[in-house]
Amino acid sequence: MVRVTPLGRAAVLAVGSELLTPSRVDTNSLFITEQLNLLGVDVLLKTIVGDDRGELAAALRAALARVDLVVCCGGLGPTDDDVTRDVVAQVLDRPLVEDGEVAARIEARFAGRGLRMPGINLRQAMVPAGARVLANGHGTAPGLWVEHGDRLVVLLPGPPRELKPMMAALVDGPLRERTAGLSLVRRVLRITGRTESHTEEAVRTLYAEWARAGVPVAATILASLGQIELHLSARAGRRADADAALDAASSQVVERLGLDVYSSDGRPLEQVVGDLLAARRLRIAVAESCTGGLLASRLTDVPGSSRYVDRGVVVYANDAKTDLLGVPAALLSAHGAVSEPVAVAMAEGIRARAGTDVGIGVTGIAGPGGGTPEKPVGTVAVAAALPDLTRSRLFRFVGGREMVKFQASQAALDMVRRMLVSGARS
Amino acid sequence: MVRVTPLGRAAVLAVGSELLTPSRVDTNSLFITEQLNLLGVDVLLKTIVGDDRGELAAALRAALARVDLVVCCGGLGPTDDDVTRDVVAQVLDRPLVEDGEVAARIEARFAGRGLRMPGINLRQAMVPAGARVLANGHGTAPGLWVEHGDRLVVLLPGPPRELKPMMAALVDGPLRERTAGLSLVRRVLRITGRTESHTEEAVRTLYAEWARAGVPVAATILASLGQIELHLSARAGRRADADAALDAASSQVVERLGLDVYSSDGRPLEQVVGDLLAARRLRIAVAESCTGGLLASRLTDVPGSSRYVDRGVVVYANDAKTDLLGVPAALLSAHGAVSEPVAVAMAEGIRARAGTDVGIGVTGIAGPGGGTPEKPVGTVAVAAALPDLTRSRLFRFVGGREMVKFQASQAALDMVRRMLVSGARS
Repeated sequence: MVRVTPLGRAAVLAVGSELLTPSRVDTNSLFITEQLNLLGVDVLLKTIVGDDRGELAAALRAALARVDLVVCCGGLGPTDDDVTRDVVAQVLDRPLVEDGEVAARIEARFAGRGLRMPGINLRQAMVPAGARVLANGHGTAPGLWVEHGDRLVVLLPGPPRELKPMMAALVDGPLRERTAGLSLVRRVLRITGRTESHTEEAVRTLYAEWARAGVPVAATILASLGQIELHLSARAGRRADADAALDAASSQVVERLGLDVYSSDGRPLEQVVGDLLAARRLRIAVAESCTGGLLASRLTDVPGSSRYVDRGVVVYANDAKTDLLGVPAALLSAHGAVSEPVAVAMAEGIRARAGTDVGIGVTGIAGPGGGTPEKPVGTVAVAAALPDLTRSRLFRFVGGREMVKFQASQAALDMVRRMLVSGARS
Repeated sequence: MVRVTPLGRAAVLAVGSELLTPSRVDTNSLFITEQLNLLGVDVLLKTIVGDDRGELAAALRAALARVDLVVCCGGLGPTDDDVTRDVVAQVLDRPLVEDGEVAARIEARFAGRGLRMPGINLRQAMVPAGARVLANGHGTAPGLWVEHGDRLVVLLPGPPRELKPMMAALVDGPLRERTAGLSLVRRVLRITGRTESHTEEAVRTLYAEWARAGVPVAATILASLGQIELHLSARAGRRADADAALDAASSQVVERLGLDVYSSDGRPLEQVVGDLLAARRLRIAVAESCTGGLLASRLTDVPGSSRYVDRGVVVYANDAKTDLLGVPAALLSAHGAVSEPVAVAMAEGIRARAGTDVGIGVTGIAGPGGGTPEKPVGTVAVAAALPDLTRSRLFRFVGGREMVKFQASQAALDMVRRMLVSGARS
């Protein structure tokens, strides 16, 4: 069948009663949107319904009346409240039929883990007649691709680790073939060390210039504790043109903000630091009090981090600081556990004991308890020791316990990054 | 006018083009849902549209066909892309008229800050004829309450600090009068140690019984790696009756699933373990390899965890395992770093060196590299040492690096929980 109209307007339909409670928000649509934007497809509408046949049917009909591509996520599980397959078959007016290959694949998946397949999992092998089955490498629910006149309905499983690779594969293949091939490209510049308004002041005069360019670039600033993001986007017939426009805009921002921009290619701070360490063949060890393991955990979130992470210690109790790091008891009593001298002793102590090139020390008060008038909750001392240089700084963070932990780990990583980039010789 | 039908079914309509980009998610609807649930009103549908007249009109019409209460948020600002007032007036077929009081209030607000009111702000004084104006104590955009036959449309401003007090005031007053005064109460049971389908098989025969009860209880199962959640909800005239129905349903589930249910009051696993440790006045120390600090970080996410967390060590390098934990080099070479004997030596080593009651050891292959045919990525050995008992187990987890780390930390916490609850005497 020859198609003349490329898909251009999409709706995302998220299915799950939990998404209608006060504690859960749909985030799958963010990834789906990002992927569709890569093809120049705009999302015009998101709808979220519960595991309810009537509501899902109404929402699907409403979406089909507005757009030419509907991406549904969720409700493909094996249980009674997983109704997406049934409702889509009903709205598109075709029967559900069992797909033998899918059934065999699910059975094999259970067998591979030494488990018997519960009978209810066979529901996942039922597909609307004429649908194309999308393989799921990470779970039992296959995705489905259903053509409906000049409209397309794609069903994806709800768990993000199943949905994301499936969606990405569609964008690389069959979905790309069905769109105009315009590329909407986004880029995120990640920034530390200045506030949202100071970032805005520094870059806002660029906005008008970008808007008038041959390939216009749009910008938005998003701020959260410990991190500012500048989101840029450009749309062009060729992806290379959009990329070039974003390259130019990014360079202008970096010119104005300098080292405060730590990433313009999506890498999180722990990976930027890890890449710097790996490139210089340096090993690191960390000593944490208030961050409680978060700093080590972020460093080790990066694949391959065992090349440069030697060890970490979480020293909550004072005697652990003395035991494991050799922090003198006298230093602790003279300055208090939350102080720059103690952070320095921790950083230099872990560096010496582990025999690594770099050591980090973090000590602070994450709250909600433990604050004093001189050292309120959010007070955190951070130190980094390199072969020829040790730096330390006292921070005052705001926010709850987890936010203080995050900002402290961010400050520690950023201190090491700046020391490595701005040329502590090592 | 006497109304006989109380409002019971609601839709939330969030307006704003930024909510259709890959980086922003609507969160206002969570607060609105929580507030509506307090009145026993269910949210059946959420729709998110951009600042687009056509899409907003279609979404509002679709919502009005399904529910009796539509809460719109956003799009009430003074600029051209704030279209909510216009579209609502058009869909409900009434003219927009200037409200003199609102105009005066906006002008006074500017004057109070020593500013001239920009002409465009007068748009915010235009209201659909017959609408009731809702005062905004934190901004210039008034809310609006528009009756439409037996349906109600409420318009709230988008900024959370304006929306929240306005919504809360409605729930305390006019909205309460328009609903049946029922309470919708939710409860989440958190489960480990079995798959989604096996959980469903064990409890599904309860569903029909719950549905027929005097106060019916609805259930949904949600699965993610390392954790199953069973969401229960009940609606009743008195909150106490809903609570009692949920208590009874929870007890039935616990009867069937036993210790696999670790929480029925919202507490995450790290807090359940922390509370058990605190109640028994036990202190804990952890030794982690593949979890890289995540286990310590989760334990220390709990406020007050310094009472029972003594220390943690992250031992990525083999010599760190020997140095910091006394794991014999011979044991490492005999069994490999990822093995139950090494996990046991790590748990007992950290327990002995820290002088704590409980020690945990975790060693595994988080991936993506490092797997072998006998020990593929996802292989993790976990051990927990208590004063009179040490246990260990070898797991095979699926998923990417961060998911393996999470599941391993979950398995370690769960092992300690089961040992503490099922009566390792200590």
